[in-house]
Amino acid sequence: MYIEKINSPADLKGMTVDQLGVLAEEVRQGVLNRVSQHGGHVGPNLGFCEATVALHYVFDTPEDRIVFDVSHQSYPHKMLTGRKDGFLDSSRMDHISGYSSPLESPVYDNFEIGHTSTSVSLMSGLMKGRDILGGKENVIAVIGDGSLSGGEAFEGLNTVSEIGTNAIIVVNDNEMSIAENHGGLYRNLKLLRDTQGKAENNFFKAFGLDYVYVEEGNNVARLVEAFRQVKGIDHPVVVHIHTEKGHGYQPAVDNKEAWHWHMPFHLEDGTLLEAMDGESMPMLLGDWLFEEMKRDPKLVCIAAGVPAAIGFNKERRVAAGRQFIDVGIAEEEAVALASGMAKRGAHPVFSTYATFFQRTYDQLSQDLAVNGTPAVFNVLGSSIYGMNDFTHICFFDIPMISHIPNLVYLAPTTCEELIAMERWAIAQDKHSVAIRVPAFGAAHATGPVDESYDAIDTFKVTHRGGRVAVIAAGDFYQKGEAVVARLAGQGIDATLINPRFLSGADEPLLEELKADHEVVATIEDGVLDGGFGERIARFYGPSTMKVLCFGVKKQLYDRYDVAQLLVDNHLTEEQIVADIQAALS
Amino acid sequence: MYIEKINSPADLKGMTVDQLGVLAEEVRQGVLNRVSQHGGHVGPNLGFCEATVALHYVFDTPEDRIVFDVSHQSYPHKMLTGRKDGFLDSSRMDHISGYSSPLESPVYDNFEIGHTSTSVSLMSGLMKGRDILGGKENVIAVIGDGSLSGGEAFEGLNTVSEIGTNAIIVVNDNEMSIAENHGGLYRNLKLLRDTQGKAENNFFKAFGLDYVYVEEGNNVARLVEAFRQVKGIDHPVVVHIHTEKGHGYQPAVDNKEAWHWHMPFHLEDGTLLEAMDGESMPMLLGDWLFEEMKRDPKLVCIAAGVPAAIGFNKERRVAAGRQFIDVGIAEEEAVALASGMAKRGAHPVFSTYATFFQRTYDQLSQDLAVNGTPAVFNVLGSSIYGMNDFTHICFFDIPMISHIPNLVYLAPTTCEELIAMERWAIAQDKHSVAIRVPAFGAAHATGPVDESYDAIDTFKVTHRGGRVAVIAAGDFYQKGEAVVARLAGQGIDATLINPRFLSGADEPLLEELKADHEVVATIEDGVLDGGFGERIARFYGPSTMKVLCFGVKKQLYDRYDVAQLLVDNHLTEEQIVADIQAALS
Repeated sequence: MYIEKINSPADLKGMTVDQLGVLAEEVRQGVLNRVSQHGGHVGPNLGFCEATVALHYVFDTPEDRIVFDVSHQSYPHKMLTGRKDGFLDSSRMDHISGYSSPLESPVYDNFEIGHTSTSVSLMSGLMKGRDILGGKENVIAVIGDGSLSGGEAFEGLNTVSEIGTNAIIVVNDNEMSIAENHGGLYRNLKLLRDTQGKAENNFFKAFGLDYVYVEEGNNVARLVEAFRQVKGIDHPVVVHIHTEKGHGYQPAVDNKEAWHWHMPFHLEDGTLLEAMDGESMPMLLGDWLFEEMKRDPKLVCIAAGVPAAIGFNKERRVAAGRQFIDVGIAEEEAVALASGMAKRGAHPVFSTYATFFQRTYDQLSQDLAVNGTPAVFNVLGSSIYGMNDFTHICFFDIPMISHIPNLVYLAPTTCEELIAMERWAIAQDKHSVAIRVPAFGAAHATGPVDESYDAIDTFKVTHRGGRVAVIAAGDFYQKGEAVVARLAGQGIDATLINPRFLSGADEPLLEELKADHEVVATIEDGVLDGGFGERIARFYGPSTMKVLCFGVKKQLYDRYDVAQLLVDNHLTEEQIVADIQAALS
Repeated sequence: MYIEKINSPADLKGMTVDQLGVLAEEVRQGVLNRVSQHGGHVGPNLGFCEATVALHYVFDTPEDRIVFDVSHQSYPHKMLTGRKDGFLDSSRMDHISGYSSPLESPVYDNFEIGHTSTSVSLMSGLMKGRDILGGKENVIAVIGDGSLSGGEAFEGLNTVSEIGTNAIIVVNDNEMSIAENHGGLYRNLKLLRDTQGKAENNFFKAFGLDYVYVEEGNNVARLVEAFRQVKGIDHPVVVHIHTEKGHGYQPAVDNKEAWHWHMPFHLEDGTLLEAMDGESMPMLLGDWLFEEMKRDPKLVCIAAGVPAAIGFNKERRVAAGRQFIDVGIAEEEAVALASGMAKRGAHPVFSTYATFFQRTYDQLSQDLAVNGTPAVFNVLGSSIYGMNDFTHICFFDIPMISHIPNLVYLAPTTCEELIAMERWAIAQDKHSVAIRVPAFGAAHATGPVDESYDAIDTFKVTHRGGRVAVIAAGDFYQKGEAVVARLAGQGIDATLINPRFLSGADEPLLEELKADHEVVATIEDGVLDGGFGERIARFYGPSTMKVLCFGVKKQLYDRYDVAQLLVDNHLTEEQIVADIQAALS
C-alpha cells in the first residue's frame, strides 16, 4: 500500500505515474471505507481521486493553494494531506469533518467551505492577495459542473479573467449536480465534451479565460500532463476535466443522484446499514404537494439543486412534469422565478434548506417582499436538530427572514398545522409567505387546526391560565406544552401560546397578558440574537412584566451534541421551569 | 409635439417610423426636463429613448410584459405609459418615482425594481407563469451591459435558456456600468460589437440563447426591424443593441460616469443648480483610505460598481493602481475576494451601500465570518437620512449584519472614531469587521478617541450618572447626548453610553447598571425589529429594569419626510425625554 506512506503531498513527489494510478485507487478504497461506515459524499469524491493525486503530484501545496468548491470532492485531498486516519481507521472517523477546514488543517485547507459556487471567488482573493504581496505561487480552484450555475461562480469567473494573472480553474465535469444539471450552460459543456473541447463557442472563453480540455478525467497520466502544462501559467486558465461521478463503485455509478451523499451502507451491495424509518415533516410536505399538484394545475414546485429535500425523487419529478422546475444551484434565481410566477398568477412553492436561503436575502427583500408577490417558501432544516456541520447550521433563519418587511414568516407546530399553513399560503394572494418546516420528528395535532391565517400576527392561546405565559414557537411548541404541564404540577396554571407568526408580535394579546401575568417565557428553536423572543422582550421593556427568552447563544457551531447544547443553553424542560420559578420568586 | 398625444402605448401604433424618431427625441427632451430640475438617472435613460419607443411600437403592452433592470432606463417607458406629466410638468415631478413601480402603474410596470441584475430572473417567472397558465404574450427583459455581471443575471440567463419558450432579452449595451465595466465578459461584448455580432465565441450563445445584434441602438427604424423579427418567437433570444450612454446631451456623452445619475443642473451647460457643500463621512473616509494606501502597500480598496460612494473618482482610481479593484456589479464576488485577500495577508476594504450588502448575506456568513478572515467592510448609507426610495432603504442593516456569528459590527459616532475604527480594523488580524459609516453630517469628537477595539463588545460610558442610562448607537449618539442634556435640565443626571459594537452586548456593564438605574433607553438609526435595542431588552427581560427602545418601525418605506418619520417613531429629543420621564414615574 502506497497510501500508508503518504503523510503529506511531498511524499508523492518521487512516485512514478503508474504508482500514482495505484495510489489513486487506494485513495478510492479509503473514501469508500469511510463513507460506508460513516456516511458522507460518495459520488463526487470517487470521481476525483485521480485528479487529486495528480494535483498534489504536480503542484506544491501548501505554497500553491487549492480551493475546493463546496468540499464535496475534498476527501481524497484530506487523505493526502495528513488526515488518512479519518478514512482508514474506523475509530478515528469522527476526528475529521466532511468539509474543507483550516481548523482541521491550517496548512492544507484554505477555507471552511460547505456552500456551493464559492471556490473561484475565494480563489480570486488569494490571487489578488498574492499579486499585492508579490507572491509567485499557483492558485487553483476546483469546481464541479453543478456548482457552475450559482451566481457567485459566474461573478468569480468574470473577475478572475479581469485580474488576469496566474489562476487555474479545474472544472470537474461529472455531468451531474447533486441531481441532474439544469440550465443552458450545460448544453455548452456537453458540446465541449462532444468536441473534445474544440467547439468554437466556449462558455469559459466567452469570459476571456484560456482553456484546456481533458477527456480522460479519471486517468492520472492525462491529468498530470494537463496540470504540468498549466503550472506556473501567467494568466487564468480553465482545465475542464471529464470525470465519472461514482467512478469505481458500481452502485454509485448506476444511481448517481442517490449516491451523491449517502448514509452508511454495506460495501458489497450498497444497501443501507440501518433502515430509515419514522415520519418526517419535509417528506410529508412533499407528499402533500405532489398530491396537491393534481388538484391545482397552477401549483409549481421549485427546487434549487436539492429536490430530494422534500422527497422529489426522479420518478416524482417526471410525474410532476411542467409543475416541477429545478433551477440547479441557483437560489437567487429560484426566489425571483417564484416571485415572477406569482405575479403572473401561478402558485409557486420553493423549498430549500435555511442555510441555502442565506443566498437569497436580497431576493427575498427586493424581488419578493417589496413586490408583495404571493409566492410560498418552505424553509427546511431550521432547527438545532438539523444539519450540524460548521457551514450548514440552519438555525439562524429567524433573524435573517423574520425582519424583512412585508414578508410573513410562519412557524407550524404540527404536521396538520404545516399543511394548513401551506394550503392557506398557496391559496391567498396578498402576502409573500415563508414557512419554517420542522426538521425533527412529526408531531400531530390533537384537535382541529385553523384553516385561515389571514389575521397576520395573531397568536393562538391554546390554554389560558395566569401568572406565567409560555410562548413556544414552531417545533418547540411541544417543549412549551411540557413546561406548562410541569408548572401545573407545581401549582402554576400557566398560559400556553402558539405564536404561529415569527414576523410580528400580537400586541393586543401581549397587552392583555399584563393584567394577570408576571412572567412571559419565549421558547424558540434557534439563535436568541435577533430572534423571536427579543421582539417580545422589547414589547414588555417599558412594563413590569419579566421576560425570559429561551433559545441558543449566537456563536459558530460545529458537530455539536444536541443534548449538551440543550443543557448549555438552559433549554431542557427542567431548566426552563426552574428559570421561570426563579423569576416568579 | 407627438408626446402630448401619447397617453398609452396604443397611441403609438398608427405612427410612421419617421414620426417615431421624432417622438423619441421629444421623449429625450422630457427626460432632460425632469432630471435637470429634479435630478435622477441621466445617461442610461437618454440612451434608451429610441429603444423604448420601438419596444412600445412593436410589442403590445400591457399584455406583453417588459421588465426593466434596476429601472435606470425606465424613464422613457414612464413617459409613454401615462406618466409624462412627471417629466413635462414641473409641478408634478414628485408624483412619480425614479423606478419601475406597480404602485405607480399597476398596468404597465411589472415589478418594483431598484437593485441590479434582476430583470432576467424576474422575467423567467413571468415566462414560466405564462406557460403554466397557457398565456401567449411576449415576455421581455431589458438589461444593461453593466448589470450583466451580477450573479442573479447569470442565473436568470441559464434558467431562461432551459425553460426554452418565448422570452426576449434586450441587452442595452452602452459600454458602461455606473462607472466603467469590469470583468472578462466585457471583452466578449466588445468582440461582438466589433464583429457586428458575428463572432463565433458568443457569451449569450454559450448559454444556449438565440442572438440578434443591432449596431444602431439609437436608430428607431433598425430597432423596430429587430423587435419585429423576434416578436412572437417560440424560444429565448437576446437582442443585443449598441447604444450610446447620454445620447443627445453632450455633457452626459462627454463624462458618462458623472452623468449616470446627476443632481439638478442647468440644461445649457450641465453645471449644478446648487453647489454641494459640507463635510460627509463617506468622503472623509475615502480621503483617508486614499492617503493610507500610500503608507500601507497591502491596503486594497474594493468597489462593486459604485466607487464614487466613497469618492473614488477616475483620477483617484488610476492613482491607486493595483491597490484599487472594482469588480463591477458583483457584490458576492467582492466579499469573497476580500476574504481571500485577507487570508493571503493583504488588507482589503470593501465599501458599498447597506442595501447592496443585502446581496452578500451568505458571503458575509460563509465566505467571511466562518473563516474569521480579517477583511474590512464599510456599510454606507445606513440611516433614515440615507437614500429613501422604496428599493434603496439602507436602515435594515443591523438585523441583517449584527446577528451573523463571528462578525464584528462597529458603529462610529464621529469622524475621528470612524477613522480610528477603520485603522484598527485594517491593522488587526483576528476579526472580520463591518463598520456602519454615518450617512448624514460629520460630527467631530470633542476629545481623544480610543485607538484599540480589541475588547470586543465593550461599550464606552461617556458620562456616568444614575436612574436613567441612554445607550445611543452610531450617528444617533449625538441625539443621545442631547437627550441626556435635556434630562439634566430636568434634574436627572443620566448615564450616557456609546456602545460602539452593534454585534454584541457588554453584559458586565449592563449588569452593573442595575445597581443604580431604573430605565435604560436605546437609540438607534434603524429598524427596531431585530435591531440593537432588542438585545438590550432581552438582557434586562428577567430584571426589573425598564427598557425603552427607540428606532423605526418595521415596514416598507418610500420617499418619506424625515422630520415626519422622526415624529411618527417617537424619535425627536422631546419625545424621547417624555417617554423616559413617563417610564420613571
